[in-house]
This record gives sequence, structure tokens and C-alpha cells, in this order.
Amino acid sequence: MPKTSVTVFAPATVANLGSGFDVFGLAISGLGDSLRMEPNTYGGIRIRSIKGDDGKLSTDPEQNTAGVALMALLEHLGVNRGFDLWLTKKMPMGSGMGSSAASAAAAVVAANHLLGSPCSKEELVYWAMQGERIASGAAHADNVAPSILGGITLVRTTDPLEVLRLPVPSRLHVAILHPHLELPTSESRKALPRQIPLSDAVRQWANTASLVAGLYAKDLSLIGRAMEDRVAEPARGPLIPDFAKVKSAALDAGALACTISGAGPSIVALCSSRPQADRVGAAMREVYLEKNLSCSLYVSAVNRKGTVITKR
Amino acid sequence: MPKTSVTVFAPATVANLGSGFDVFGLAISGLGDSLRMEPNTYGGIRIRSIKGDDGKLSTDPEQNTAGVALMALLEHLGVNRGFDLWLTKKMPMGSGMGSSAASAAAAVVAANHLLGSPCSKEELVYWAMQGERIASGAAHADNVAPSILGGITLVRTTDPLEVLRLPVPSRLHVAILHPHLELPTSESRKALPRQIPLSDAVRQWANTASLVAGLYAKDLSLIGRAMEDRVAEPARGPLIPDFAKVKSAALDAGALACTISGAGPSIVALCSSRPQADRVGAAMREVYLEKNLSCSLYVSAVNRKGTVITKR
Repeated sequence: MPKTSVTVFAPATVANLGSGFDVFGLAISGLGDSLRMEPNTYGGIRIRSIKGDDGKLSTDPEQNTAGVALMALLEHLGVNRGFDLWLTKKMPMGSGMGSSAASAAAAVVAANHLLGSPCSKEELVYWAMQGERIASGAAHADNVAPSILGGITLVRTTDPLEVLRLPVPSRLHVAILHPHLELPTSESRKALPRQIPLSDAVRQWANTASLVAGLYAKDLSLIGRAMEDRVAEPARGPLIPDFAKVKSAALDAGALACTISGAGPSIVALCSSRPQADRVGAAMREVYLEKNLSCSLYVSAVNRKGTVITKR
Repeated sequence: MPKTSVTVFAPATVANLGSGFDVFGLAISGLGDSLRMEPNTYGGIRIRSIKGDDGKLSTDPEQNTAGVALMALLEHLGVNRGFDLWLTKKMPMGSGMGSSAASAAAAVVAANHLLGSPCSKEELVYWAMQGERIASGAAHADNVAPSILGGITLVRTTDPLEVLRLPVPSRLHVAILHPHLELPTSESRKALPRQIPLSDAVRQWANTASLVAGLYAKDLSLIGRAMEDRVAEPARGPLIPDFAKVKSAALDAGALACTISGAGPSIVALCSSRPQADRVGAAMREVYLEKNLSCSLYVSAVNRKGTVITKR
């Protein structure tokens, strides 16, 4: 019995978590992409509409991460069927919160459901990752993995893809300040050094290891210390207006840690409770309000479910 | 009631564990330093004898890691007392198994006992680390931490010192091939690059993070994969005769992973049981025997106790 329609929701995500540049990712609640998908008789992929993108995204499936990921999955499965897609962005784009990844995640999870679930969620991460190629030039999994799987993920390798799911301490919340400015991922990538001092690298891999220990041991203070980033944050921080002041304000207000979300420009603070995240978020926003800089604030628990079916 | 004599045993250790260059360390059973210590009325530190060192170590306390660590501890405590030391090396020196660290660990644990235990074991790691300055030119803790604390340790930072104790899967064993040749730590350090490509660094910190996840999850296969080293092993492997062949032999015989122990020249294989470690060790040794290269083989469980008092 072929299924005829499905709607899924794929959450926004925070990649890197400081020290874990390109390897850690965390799914957040409330923000993400809603995608309706139906088989069509036309035979190809059609993106019928995109809402909430201010007209910025292409409805050409080859230029949209949802379309690219979906085509990669269908080719892998040897499925010669067409699908119509209706995408609703319920999150900011170009913000460093994994907008392109959420579209790719939603597309592969929806199609997998309509096809009778031939793939596990873990396998779907691989196909969603193919969509990221057109967004950032390389097939990264640090956003698509948490968007599909939920929680906090660790990408050990992308070739072959190996993703670990890490424990999520129940009290963990995030406050995210989204500055209303464009910071293309390509520009943010260009700011990174191609070589780094061995001493900084050692400190960084001590920190990623310690962050995992903190997650398993539910040691929130250790998690905060272990997010220290000697590599990406020093290079990218200067691209974000008043990043240092926002970070100071977050830490002064009690945040466990504060760093850049993904490639930026959003700034994320990890917090040990919802009330703390509210206070920390208010303190971060205050820095922008004082300077008349436009921004949005999001406060959220960690999304543990990943991409889910919201309507069949 | 002042205590009058104590004998301690500090175990040999394997630093790095592949990906975790300068941060991970593991204590092994059977090998290490035995140290007897007594207060003296002379007032200074005297190393009365050193056995098992083939006359290679200095009895000048300022030239011996035991003496340097002990003096650092006594100065910190404001203790103006003298101690006599009798050191027995029950492990090879210059082997990459933490010989200098074992001496430093033994000295601070023995003195701390004789002084009524003013310091915790964690604090003693800091003072033992000071002894490492004369052995390797820098105060590293990746050998002294496991030698004192036992098990598997992670040094997040040395300044300030922060050491984490990681879970040890019960079946974990090591096979260590010790080539009978000199590879000074200074030479082994010189082989390291000062800068590394960001892409290699990312893979390395994905691996250290995954290694910790493997230890917590008792996933031995993941532990093996996560020991992959893109940084130190490629630079140092060529300094060790037939390293690549020994590694291949170990992996072919079923080892979870095989890499250089500390700065070398010893080669360590992690194994999932004692019988497997015996088989893997035999296969590693066979490579050296076939070429008439002199070596010793050690097969051991993980030492979980660290430095212990063996006689009061």
C-alpha cells in the first residue's frame, strides 16, 4: 500500500560546540524546516513551494539541498519515482544554525517514510550529507547528523561516515543570539587557517576528548571548560560584530560556555537550566540592543528526537 | 608519630594512545619503579642507590626526576626535612614507557605518605610533573598522571593542571614490543611538525573525542578505530625499525589498534583479552626475531591502582 503524503519536521542545529570544529553538533527545539512530500506521476523531483525564505532559496531541485539530498538517496535506492515537495522554513537562513542541513534532513526522512523505510536514520545521515555539498562545497555531517538523529552527535569520519550519538545531560539548554547580518559560510571558512600550531591542536583535542567525558559524566562545568576553542573562534570571532562583548556578557550571566554557532554569525551559549538560559540570552541581547544592532534571540532545550514525522 | 620508612611502586605507562598525543595515558601492570624512602637527619635529599639502571641514571637529586619532583613538593609544602632514597628500576629506561615519570611518581607518593598525606593523589600529579621538566624539557603529565592515578587518564590542560580519570573496559590488555635501541625523547620530539594541516587536526580531535566515547561505552572496536593517529605516528614511525611491519602483524593478529608507546621506540598494541594480547605480542616479536633485531615483549592488563605503598 503506497503512502501518499507525509509531513516531517527537521530541527535546526548548532555545529562545532567550540572545540569540536567540524565534528560536534547539537539539535535544538522549536526551530527547523517543515516539509510536505507526495509522490507525483510526473516522475521527477519538483519543489512546488518554499515559504519563509523571503524568496532566497531556489526551487530548482539541483540547487536546493533538499533536492540534492533526495536525488542522492533515490539514486542509491534505485528508485525511479517522482516526488513533489512543499518546504516551509521555520528558522533563519544563513545564520549558522544549519538551515541547509535541516532541508536535506527533512527531504531524506520524508522520502524514506514514503518508500517504506528502507534506510535506518543513521544511513539517512549519509544521503542528507550529500545535500550539504551544494551549500558549503563539501559534504559535512556536523549539522545533518544532529538534525536527523537529535541530541548531540560526533562525526568521527565522513569517509566512511561514522557518527556517534552522545549522552545529553537533561538540564542542558542553549541561548542563541542571531545577529541580523549575512556571513556566508564560504567567507567564514576562508577566515580559517589552513595550518595550525601543534600546541594549539593538542589543546583542542584534549578539549574535544574532555567534552565527551563531560557529557558522559553529566559534568556541566567540565562541558563548559572543554568547549574552549583555540582554532575557529579566534579566526571567526572578529567577523561577528561585538562577539567578544556578547561572549563576556553570556559568561558573566552564568553561561557554561559561549561560542560561535557553526560558521556563524549566530552566537550560542550553553546553560545549565532554562532559567539560566533565559538570563544569559537577555544579557547577550542587551549588548546588541545597546548598540542598536538588529538581532533575534532563541532559547531552547536540546532536541532529542531529531527529524520526526508530524503528519501522515 | 613520624613514619620512618616507606616503599612504594609506581607503574610504567603508555602515553598518547595514538590520536591523543600529549593528552592520554594508560598505566600497565608488572613494570615500574620501586622506591624506598626514609627521613634523614642530614637535611637534604640523598639518592643512596639506584639499581636496575645499568649505571645510567644520576644520583644527583637535581639531575634525577625523583629528586626534582620531591624537591618541588617539599618546597610547596614548606617542609624543611631531608630524605634518603633507594630506587630500583623494574622497567626499561628510554623505552617510551614512562621511566622518568615512574621515578617522579614514586618519589612524591612516598614523601606524601611519610609526611602524613597532606596532598591528594590528584595534587601529587602536579608535583611529579615538575620532575618531567628535566627529563623532556617540559612539564608533561601524560605519563605521571596514569602512573600515580592508575587506569586511563586524560590531561585536559597542564596550566592549570586538570586531569580526568576515564573508565577502563575490563577486558582491555596491552602487548608492548620494546626494541632494544636508544630513541631519545628529544630526537623523537624533533621529528614532530610544528604546524599541522587543519584537516588532519580535525580528524585527530574527532578521534580523541571518539576514544573517550569508546571507553565510556565499553566499545572496544570503537576504541581501536579512534586511536588512529595522523600526526605523531607518521612522523615518528620511520624512526623505529620495521614499525609498519610490526603494526601490520599486530593488526593481522587481531589487535584493536597498534601505535607508538609515548615517544617510542616501544610499540603498543591494544587488545580485547589476555589471550589475544599474547597472540598479538608473539606476532609483533616474530617480526623482530626474523630480522635478528633485539627486543623484549611485555603483555599486561591495565593497572588500575597507580602508585601504591608496598611496604611501611
